[in-house]
Amino acid sequence: MIAITLTTDFGNEDPYVGIMKGVILNTYPYAKLIEITNNIRPQDISQASFVLEQSFKFFPKGTVHLCVVDPGVGSGRKPIILQTENYLFVGPDNGVFTSVLNQEEFIKAVKIENTDYMLKEISNTFHGRDIFAPAAAFLAKGVDINDFGSEIQKEELVLSTENEVIKKEKSRIGQVKYIDRFGNLITNICADDLPEKLKGKVKGKGFRDLHTSYTTGKANELLAIKGSSNTLELSVNSGNAQKITNASVGDKVEVKF
Amino acid sequence: MIAITLTTDFGNEDPYVGIMKGVILNTYPYAKLIEITNNIRPQDISQASFVLEQSFKFFPKGTVHLCVVDPGVGSGRKPIILQTENYLFVGPDNGVFTSVLNQEEFIKAVKIENTDYMLKEISNTFHGRDIFAPAAAFLAKGVDINDFGSEIQKEELVLSTENEVIKKEKSRIGQVKYIDRFGNLITNICADDLPEKLKGKVKGKGFRDLHTSYTTGKANELLAIKGSSNTLELSVNSGNAQKITNASVGDKVEVKF
Amino acid sequence: MIAITLTTDFGNEDPYVGIMKGVILNTYPYAKLIEITNNIRPQDISQASFVLEQSFKFFPKGTVHLCVVDPGVGSGRKPIILQTENYLFVGPDNGVFTSVLNQEEFIKAVKIENTDYMLKEISNTFHGRDIFAPAAAFLAKGVDINDFGSEIQKEELVLSTENEVIKKEKSRIGQVKYIDRFGNLITNICADDLPEKLKGKVKGKGFRDLHTSYTTGKANELLAIKGSSNTLELSVNSGNAQKITNASVGDKVEVKF
Repeated sequence: MIAITLTTDFGNEDPYVGIMKGVILNTYPYAKLIEITNNIRPQDISQASFVLEQSFKFFPKGTVHLCVVDPGVGSGRKPIILQTENYLFVGPDNGVFTSVLNQEEFIKAVKIENTDYMLKEISNTFHGRDIFAPAAAFLAKGVDINDFGSEIQKEELVLSTENEVIKKEKSRIGQVKYIDRFGNLITNICADDLPEKLKGKVKGKGFRDLHTSYTTGKANELLAIKGSSNTLELSVNSGNAQKITNASVGDKVEVKF
Repeated sequence: MIAITLTTDFGNEDPYVGIMKGVILNTYPYAKLIEITNNIRPQDISQASFVLEQSFKFFPKGTVHLCVVDPGVGSGRKPIILQTENYLFVGPDNGVFTSVLNQEEFIKAVKIENTDYMLKEISNTFHGRDIFAPAAAFLAKGVDINDFGSEIQKEELVLSTENEVIKKEKSRIGQVKYIDRFGNLITNICADDLPEKLKGKVKGKGFRDLHTSYTTGKANELLAIKGSSNTLELSVNSGNAQKITNASVGDKVEVKF
Repeated sequence: MIAITLTTDFGNEDPYVGIMKGVILNTYPYAKLIEITNNIRPQDISQASFVLEQSFKFFPKGTVHLCVVDPGVGSGRKPIILQTENYLFVGPDNGVFTSVLNQEEFIKAVKIENTDYMLKEISNTFHGRDIFAPAAAFLAKGVDINDFGSEIQKEELVLSTENEVIKKEKSRIGQVKYIDRFGNLITNICADDLPEKLKGKVKGKGFRDLHTSYTTGKANELLAIKGSSNTLELSVNSGNAQKITNASVGDKVEVKF
C-alpha cells in the first residue's frame, strides 16, 4: 500500500483534483491518496517547491510525490519522474523539484514518454490527468522507472535559482521565503548558529533576541524564533507578523549580533 | 474496497463533512473515502452537476458517488439512489444528476425509504448525515439497491434543463458554463468540430483562432483553446480570463469561422 | 485499520497538515487518515471544541481523534492523551476537549512524556508534528496509553467554561454558539422542549415559530428550526442568517413562548 501525495495548484473547488484521484484509483485501487495541499497559488512554482521541501521527507520511504504546478502545460517542458535515495517524484520539469535535490541524493530521472502509461487521449491543458496521475499510479503499482521513457541527466534538469543568505561573522542578510496562514514570516536564515542575543529588522520593523516560545512575545511586537525547520521565523504572540510588517515573500531580513 | 466519493456544499470549515465521513466509516470501515469537492457554492445545484459531470467517469467501475447539495432538505424532494451502467449515485432528486444521465446509461433508480439503512433519528436539516451517508456506506458494503425502497421510473426523476448551443454552418452561440480557480471560462461549445481559424467574443471582448497551448497566448489577451473536456475554453496566458472579461456563468459566447 | 481524525487550525494551504500526515504514515502506514477540518480559525480553541463536539461520536469506536489548536505550543501547557468510554483523544491540554467530557465518560488521561513515542528532535513551534502526530500513530498501532507518561487526574485537566442558558418556564436566554458557512446561527438553546409557537430575537431581529424545514421560511426572514444537534438554529430560506442579522458568536438569543 504505497502512498501517493498530491501537491497542486488546482484548488479544492474545481473538479480537477477529484479527476486526478479517480484516474489514480482506476489504475491502482489500493493507492493511499494523501493531499499535501491543492492550494498552491495558481502557477506559483516557488511556493510549490517550498511546500514540497518542507514535507516530502516525513513520508515513508517509497512514497510517490506527485506535484502538478504546471504553467507550461502543452508546451515543450518535459513531464518527468525523478528518483532520489528514498522517494519518487512525478511532475513537470520546471524547477519545482529544486528544493528536493538540495536535500536528497539524486538517483535517476526519466522523461515520461511511454504512452502505455498515459490516458488514451492527451489534452493540451490537463497533463495532471492525462500523464502525471497515471504515471504516479503505475509507479506505485510497481512499474519500473526505466519503462516510462528515456533517461535525463541531472545536469539537464531545470533548476530554480535560490536566493543566497549573506553570512558575515556578526550578521546575516536573508529573505522572507514563505508566509503561512498564521502570518508567520519564514526566512531562509539558518537559526542553528544564531545567538540568543540579536537584533534585526524586516520592512523597517525591528525585533530583538531569539525567543523559545511564541508565548514569551509581547502583544503586537515582532518575535524572532527558531522555526520548525530550524530557520529564523518572525511571529507575533497571538497575532500576525505579516499584518504588522506588511511583508511579502522576497523581502529582505537583516540580523546583527 | 469500494471508493465512495463526496461532492457537497458543506465546505471544509464546518463539522458537517467530518460527520458524514464518520457515519460512513461507522457502517463500512473499509470505505475508501475520496473528496471530489466540498466547496460547491452553497445550494448551487448546477455547479455540483457540472463538477460531477466532469469527474465521475474517471473513477473505477462500481464507485459510489455521494452528492449532497440539498436546498430542499426536510421538504418533499426525494432521497434517491441512481444506478447507471458503471456507477451508483446517492443524493437528493433535485436535478443534480442531470449531467450524469446525459453520459451514462440509466439502469434503475429507487427512493430511499428503508429506515434500516438510515440513522435512528432523522433530522429535518441534515439528511447528508442521516440518510445519504448511511445509504452510500450500505451500498458500498454490498446491500442491494432494491432493498432501499421502491423503484422510480426515469421519467419521474427531476432533471435540470441545460442551455443548448445554437449551431449553424459557420457559427456557434453558446454560454459560459463554469469558471475555474484559474479564471478559465469553460463553455458548452464542443471544440472538436471547430476549425483553427475562428473569431469570437464574450462580454464584448474578442478572441481569435484556436490555440494548442496556454503558452502561445499574448499577455492580457483572451486565448481560445480546446479544454480538457473537448469544449471551447477561454483563457489568458499566465493570467485570468474571468478578470479581464468580467464574465459570469451563463454569459453568451459567440464564435464565427 | 484504525481511523485517525484531524481537527486543526493549520489550514489547507501550508505544508503543516501534509507533514503531520507523513509523520503518522511513517509510524503506522495502515492508518486511515480522516480530515474533520484543518480550517479552525487560527488559535480558536472554542471553535475547535465545538467542531469536535459535533463530530467525534459519529466515528467508529476506537477512533483516535487528533486535535491540534495550540496557541501555547512551546510553553508549559501539557501534551495529553485522553481516553473516554469509546475514543482516544490526542492534543494540548488547553480546554479543547471540554465539550467531549460533557458527552463521554472519562476513563483516563496521561501526559505525553515518553520520548520513544516522539520525533527525535522536538521543536518549540510544531508539536503537532513532533509530539501529537506520533502519539496518535502509536496509539492507533496499539501502544498502551500507560506507556506514554504519567497519569493526570480529571480534576487537573484544563476545562473551558461554557455559557449557560437561562431557562425559565416560558422563556430561554442563550447565545449564538457557532455560525456555519451557510450563515446558519447555531445556538446553545436545546430545541427539544421548545413549543412550536414561540417568538424570539437576536441582534434586534425577530423570528416567530419553530419551522420543520428551511423551505417553509419566507425570503429574507429569520426562520427558527431545530438544528441537526437538537439545538435552536436560526436560518433564512435560500439565504444567510448571519448576513441579515450581522450576528457573531456569543451574541444573545432570546426566546419566549
